[in-house]
Amino acid sequence: MQVKWEEIDHYARQWIREAGARIRATFAEKLTVETKSHRNDLVTNVDRETERFFIENIRKTFPDHRVLGEEGFGDNITTLEGIVWIIDPIDGTMNFVHQQRNFAISIGVFEKGVGMLGYVYDVVQDELYAARKGEGAFLNDKPLSPLEPVSVSEALISLNATWVTENKRIDPSVLAPLVKDARGTRSYGSAALEMAYVAAGRLDAYITMRLSPWDFAGGLVLVQEVGGIVTNLYGEPLRLLERNSVFVSKPGLHEEILKKYIHH
Amino acid sequence: MQVKWEEIDHYARQWIREAGARIRATFAEKLTVETKSHRNDLVTNVDRETERFFIENIRKTFPDHRVLGEEGFGDNITTLEGIVWIIDPIDGTMNFVHQQRNFAISIGVFEKGVGMLGYVYDVVQDELYAARKGEGAFLNDKPLSPLEPVSVSEALISLNATWVTENKRIDPSVLAPLVKDARGTRSYGSAALEMAYVAAGRLDAYITMRLSPWDFAGGLVLVQEVGGIVTNLYGEPLRLLERNSVFVSKPGLHEEILKKYIHH
Repeated sequence: MQVKWEEIDHYARQWIREAGARIRATFAEKLTVETKSHRNDLVTNVDRETERFFIENIRKTFPDHRVLGEEGFGDNITTLEGIVWIIDPIDGTMNFVHQQRNFAISIGVFEKGVGMLGYVYDVVQDELYAARKGEGAFLNDKPLSPLEPVSVSEALISLNATWVTENKRIDPSVLAPLVKDARGTRSYGSAALEMAYVAAGRLDAYITMRLSPWDFAGGLVLVQEVGGIVTNLYGEPLRLLERNSVFVSKPGLHEEILKKYIHH
Repeated sequence: MQVKWEEIDHYARQWIREAGARIRATFAEKLTVETKSHRNDLVTNVDRETERFFIENIRKTFPDHRVLGEEGFGDNITTLEGIVWIIDPIDGTMNFVHQQRNFAISIGVFEKGVGMLGYVYDVVQDELYAARKGEGAFLNDKPLSPLEPVSVSEALISLNATWVTENKRIDPSVLAPLVKDARGTRSYGSAALEMAYVAAGRLDAYITMRLSPWDFAGGLVLVQEVGGIVTNLYGEPLRLLERNSVFVSKPGLHEEILKKYIHH
């Protein structure tokens, strides 16, 4: 049976806009904030309600699709057979709690492990970054330009200070020279937005040491559609059902960083 | 003679909004980008034109006021006598060039060295943060709440990765434990916006090792008006005619960071 991607795309956009409006409506209410795996891993009632909203709609409309969601209301996914939605209802929950901005809804839709649709919705800015495999990426329906190569010395790179101080994932001395050589570094606290910013050309690269599939699934499709490169820190493809380090970059820059800083 | 602060405030807001509209209108045009003191110290024709716009208006309207501006079109200021405007036409020029967002117009107006008016205007978001000494701070005319104390373990701190890697200003090991203990770190690349975010409660602290007076003059007045603390990294008052390290924070948190991380 032919998959009706146009129909899936249509519903995904509709649900994202509706979920965004619901999230914005919660700003006036009191949040329930809990911690998950550790003291800084936050979750709110809004994360959970938003995930349930997507899952109910997907199950009703596309009963043969499966869903992998951050908050665990989806299916128990161990293979990438068929069509799988990978959903983060609020990527950047800490920003959602502290700032009421700089967070996003992130969704990637995969067919046999291939990214077919990708969405990152900046709820507060009302900016929907969306891509469909082979058809380019768009910001609120305006096409995003293909990414041009750039060198480290002219690059603005998103890289949290954590990865150049003592941490469990990487020796701080590996990325420190990159911080020094880059034109500048930034950190926004939402992987989905940071990948969308690379797709939109506002950042030249984004590096982080540990993301779950729902953090990068939407951004992966977006960035690849504009010619950006998405791998783990060592240049290998991301695994969709595991945690990965993530290295997203413009072409040229990806190769330069891998060669001069990572493999050095 | 009584200084008419209401009138100065009125004109400052009017010129800021007008300059913002002019800057937004340049987005469609090609920028001229040059470097200043070093390869990553950028300036554009828009920075220069915007500073000239302010200075012409101030000189015409308030001929006895003096102006200190980033781009050097103002007066040669060596004392803080009388009324001095301290202006950064575009704070976050690198963001302006790379992102066309996340930059601000910053203005502080001082009388005998005391901050009387402070403005940070996020040009793209059309968000004007404004404060008048003794009358509180406002975001687009909505009052900002007084800042409540918070601890490091619950704090979101703006701190660029530069300051925890090898650099000329500070031993990287001083702030590294703070990165580890804080709830999270961010970096936006505009001191004026980062100070405005502290004033608005979106960040709990902001630390940077080298700012010029025009980078912090507007934010200083804003943050103090909501009960935040602005010093150099060592807890001393900022000097308005020199470069300073800058440490902006909610109460309580300022003391905790000074004691546990800086003076340790």
